[in-house]
Amino acid sequence: MMKKSILITGGARSGKSQLAERKALQPCGRAIYIATSRIYDGDTEMAARVAAHKARRGPEWTEVDAPTDLAGALVSTDGDQPRLVDCLTLWLTNLMLDDADWQAETGRLVETLTTQSAPVVFVTNEVGLGIVPENKLARAFRDAAGYVNQAVAEACDEVWLAVAGHPMRVKPNDTPF
Amino acid sequence: MMKKSILITGGARSGKSQLAERKALQPCGRAIYIATSRIYDGDTEMAARVAAHKARRGPEWTEVDAPTDLAGALVSTDGDQPRLVDCLTLWLTNLMLDDADWQAETGRLVETLTTQSAPVVFVTNEVGLGIVPENKLARAFRDAAGYVNQAVAEACDEVWLAVAGHPMRVKPNDTPF
Amino acid sequence: MMKKSILITGGARSGKSQLAERKALQPCGRAIYIATSRIYDGDTEMAARVAAHKARRGPEWTEVDAPTDLAGALVSTDGDQPRLVDCLTLWLTNLMLDDADWQAETGRLVETLTTQSAPVVFVTNEVGLGIVPENKLARAFRDAAGYVNQAVAEACDEVWLAVAGHPMRVKPNDTPF
Repeated sequence: MMKKSILITGGARSGKSQLAERKALQPCGRAIYIATSRIYDGDTEMAARVAAHKARRGPEWTEVDAPTDLAGALVSTDGDQPRLVDCLTLWLTNLMLDDADWQAETGRLVETLTTQSAPVVFVTNEVGLGIVPENKLARAFRDAAGYVNQAVAEACDEVWLAVAGHPMRVKPNDTPF
Repeated sequence: MMKKSILITGGARSGKSQLAERKALQPCGRAIYIATSRIYDGDTEMAARVAAHKARRGPEWTEVDAPTDLAGALVSTDGDQPRLVDCLTLWLTNLMLDDADWQAETGRLVETLTTQSAPVVFVTNEVGLGIVPENKLARAFRDAAGYVNQAVAEACDEVWLAVAGHPMRVKPNDTPF
Repeated sequence: MMKKSILITGGARSGKSQLAERKALQPCGRAIYIATSRIYDGDTEMAARVAAHKARRGPEWTEVDAPTDLAGALVSTDGDQPRLVDCLTLWLTNLMLDDADWQAETGRLVETLTTQSAPVVFVTNEVGLGIVPENKLARAFRDAAGYVNQAVAEACDEVWLAVAGHPMRVKPNDTPF
């Protein structure tokens, strides 16, 4: 199985997760799902969203939780199956809420990627295309999310933007810039 | 006239409506404008926006209002002219404000599309690329809007993303995913 | 040096500025940086952002400030070096805060572009792809930003959308619409 890393980005409900699932199952019909979601007490909305995602996935998936130690999860799952990481935005949220050094963790993630044998498909969110948020934390978060997306995109072989359920190729790009 | 359905999506003031008007007039220079806007009491901003759109359109347009029964409007206007639906996001807003079953209505719309002889051009909005809204209703709306966009995109022959007045092709996509 | 004008748009932290810097340095390895930022009293966040951008730029850059008179700055810097304007969104913000006629200024900018000998690379922001802001001023601003982006894109030879640090070509577009 060819080593490959793929980033799928897009807005809310743009079909990112379904596209990423397709990609992850392509090589051998089975894959490992690395969930970064951490359901905070009383967050029934997120619980429902996670349950809906889980219900859509069948027995071809093995599930692993990695709310913060994503690099560690990649190392421990590296084998004969692709990994799907869903998603970088929740992972960043968890790191920021834990007051962890998210820039260092991003660096560690990107370095770990170079050591992997099996493919990794990342899902992430575009959060920077609305009006500047009034809330200072929201501004810091969208800056951090843009930083993480750029760093992981740089390290990936392919980057796709999901729009209304369809993938637009961002990288590699045939058009000379 | 070839049966064809086209979805044009994009952000606020990205030139979606003008691009859709061009597409709708391409086959025969005349078209039917299906307006989904419903001006709520005192909403002078929306009234001004609708008036500006109307002023830009000339006598080659016939106007029909369909704030909620879009499938019905497509059936009753199917003939020798393309239809332009502007826009799905307002239609969804109206359905949600009326507490209608917007998922069922989306299903009915998509089924109706398969029965049409004349082209249909849909305008819609991308609303999911900003920071997660703090308001719960806003989050529910952006999820619903993403759902509608995906369902209609799936049913359409072409999907375009408007950026700064220019169309980027989303579907069909020559790049293997 | 070929006259050329280029618009690079994208979300927050999408890599727009770095892409624009690459473009501006391509012809001769030197360029003029036209900064539109105006640091309002006490805005330490903007001051830090401007400082970070400045630190990344080396001695190949000459800096010029033009918070509002962008057309004038283009005229006075037109010579043997490309200009990088960073960014249109801050320029629009300044004009609106000054109660200036931003539509007239946009018209003047677009006309001035046609008189230039050296290239101009513009950076701008996409701010219209989130949920409709509740704040009326924010809505007016995102409409104005969309207007400016469309007007400048129309006048430019090339338009690019930055996504996760990578450029997607918007114009010229080989795909027939």
